Amino acid sequence: MLDPVSWICQDGRCVRKFSKDLCGIPGKLRLIDQTMLPMELTYLETDDLEDIYSCIKRLVVRGAPAIGCAAALGLAAVIRKQIFATPEEFTDAVNKTAMRLAESRPTAVNLFWALDRCVNRAATESFSSKNICKLKDSLLEEALNILEEDIQMCRSIGRHGMVLLQDGMGVLTHCNAGALATGDYGTALAPIYSAMENGIRVKVFSDETRPLLQGSRLTAWELAKAGADITTICDNMAAQVMKEGRIDLVIVGADRIAANGDTANKIGTYGVAILAKFHNIPFYVAAPYSTIDITLHDGCGIPIEQRSADEVRNGFGRQTAPSEVKIYNPAFDVTPNCLITGIITEKGILMPPFKDKITSLIIPGEQR
Amino acid sequence: MLDPVSWICQDGRCVRKFSKDLCGIPGKLRLIDQTMLPMELTYLETDDLEDIYSCIKRLVVRGAPAIGCAAALGLAAVIRKQIFATPEEFTDAVNKTAMRLAESRPTAVNLFWALDRCVNRAATESFSSKNICKLKDSLLEEALNILEEDIQMCRSIGRHGMVLLQDGMGVLTHCNAGALATGDYGTALAPIYSAMENGIRVKVFSDETRPLLQGSRLTAWELAKAGADITTICDNMAAQVMKEGRIDLVIVGADRIAANGDTANKIGTYGVAILAKFHNIPFYVAAPYSTIDITLHDGCGIPIEQRSADEVRNGFGRQTAPSEVKIYNPAFDVTPNCLITGIITEKGILMPPFKDKITSLIIPGEQR
Repeated sequence: MLDPVSWICQDGRCVRKFSKDLCGIPGKLRLIDQTMLPMELTYLETDDLEDIYSCIKRLVVRGAPAIGCAAALGLAAVIRKQIFATPEEFTDAVNKTAMRLAESRPTAVNLFWALDRCVNRAATESFSSKNICKLKDSLLEEALNILEEDIQMCRSIGRHGMVLLQDGMGVLTHCNAGALATGDYGTALAPIYSAMENGIRVKVFSDETRPLLQGSRLTAWELAKAGADITTICDNMAAQVMKEGRIDLVIVGADRIAANGDTANKIGTYGVAILAKFHNIPFYVAAPYSTIDITLHDGCGIPIEQRSADEVRNGFGRQTAPSEVKIYNPAFDVTPNCLITGIITEKGILMPPFKDKITSLIIPGEQR
Repeated sequence: MLDPVSWICQDGRCVRKFSKDLCGIPGKLRLIDQTMLPMELTYLETDDLEDIYSCIKRLVVRGAPAIGCAAALGLAAVIRKQIFATPEEFTDAVNKTAMRLAESRPTAVNLFWALDRCVNRAATESFSSKNICKLKDSLLEEALNILEEDIQMCRSIGRHGMVLLQDGMGVLTHCNAGALATGDYGTALAPIYSAMENGIRVKVFSDETRPLLQGSRLTAWELAKAGADITTICDNMAAQVMKEGRIDLVIVGADRIAANGDTANKIGTYGVAILAKFHNIPFYVAAPYSTIDITLHDGCGIPIEQRSADEVRNGFGRQTAPSEVKIYNPAFDVTPNCLITGIITEKGILMPPFKDKITSLIIPGEQR
């Protein structure tokens, strides 16, 4: 398994279930540099605040759960190397460091959630202990808990989702909701990895996912590394591949799910859902229940971020649209619940109508 | 109007209705170098056989009608500069030159059709005249007739199609079936240009059309040059733009139309047709009736060309998918007639059911 986010222990080994044999510099946060993929697999190891800030900002690490893990472990790494005379100095540094890291991606809910958790843990511990070493340990423990919970979430989604897969099936996915986006197996790709662990091999197709090509640069790369049967297509080929009978199931991730099941995800997801419906192909969303926002009645309330024209015009090394032409570049779209066959969560697969099931799934106060 | 293909007369002026003021070298074929678009507008002027062969092969000129015109005018240019002692020498040279040009794009039906027409004209004329100058003139006349007929075809499609357009409408198109692909206004874009001529302005959206990006490189470029309101989107954004109510009509070109109306066109067209159906948006195909192949009962008989993985993997100037990952790259897809609202031809708009109307439209023996 790949290692998008990990922590290097004192003995130089990585804290992450599936890559204990990877060595590195003790006390550092270790990240795959996703900006170099698919051509180079480079790891960055750092405990420097501005380095970590820059890694999150520059998309060295991306994907909501992976960003949360990276920020929490990064905070622990930065704090660990410093010397504090008092618990107040310690909590003050934790607060300041967390505030700086939170500025790296101003709309990343998981980032704030993970940092808040660490800041609260540091504050709570500093009431009961004056031992700086213990305080540092508890901060690291909280960060490792976040990583461990993320790993368990991925595994649970994988376990629940793999029942949908049979040997030889064709599965289409869009963008990257895989290992590179989480602390472990990913969300949309978790059922595929779990199936592979159980000897079930599917044929995966990844939409390249313009404009940033996460599907060809990241999904195709990580699945190939894992030994999966993976084929990349341009986004506009999905309908043809479906027509040819090569796709039995679609699984995508989610950025935000409304209380009625409407799902915001990477631009293009909505179109894939329509194509799947037309070809009678089941369309599943895979996401942790923390992605569900019960304060949103439906998808109409989800704002669609507009991104820079340059991502489309100058995506990968050369200009491919004239400077004087307008570019429309929405980052997300919303797939209405009527196009979604089921939502694979760590607590099981939700089937429509989603509204009641989603509400009963969310224990008040538990949602991130 | 742009000048994808034209002929430079003895007085240095271009033979093409809409750019009489463009000067150049007499006796030459003149082509826009489409490989340099959208960044540079470069014209190539040549009467050299291997240059012209290379221009067609390298996609300096592309689009079935434009290739036909370029080959016919290129043949006339190559022959015009040569000295022949007898009509036999002349027809022999015409045959050999045409055979060489026909090798440039082995699957381009229009290329063979245009060259055959010129070869037959040369053979017929050489029976009745021994005057080499007159023979050369008749060869050029035939080539200019092909160009003129192409211009008239575009204008007729434009006239018939513009009745579908109203001021302020949003129109989505895919790939490039515009001026750059024909001798004049194009096919899919002809109604838009005709509407503009009549003071009707629509808002055009062009899918960028991966992998070769004809929509962002060519369609967006030529519409911008013509002063149209043009916005480029990634292929996977079409559904979102439709959902936002920005698209009132889709018009695409066609590579081949079966007797029942099933239409082969650039990969992605089929998906756009499904999305249009889902959003209740009319979906029109615009093509000359020479595109209709009545020997094909339906679209099942149309072979789908598979193209190089490299077009997808290295399309933007740097590698965007790992070398070890499989790429599936079909060049075309077939849109079934049930998704097509109408077919805009130079003889009028055909509405479904297409079968009888298509058959009655084709006069036996008249089809190219």
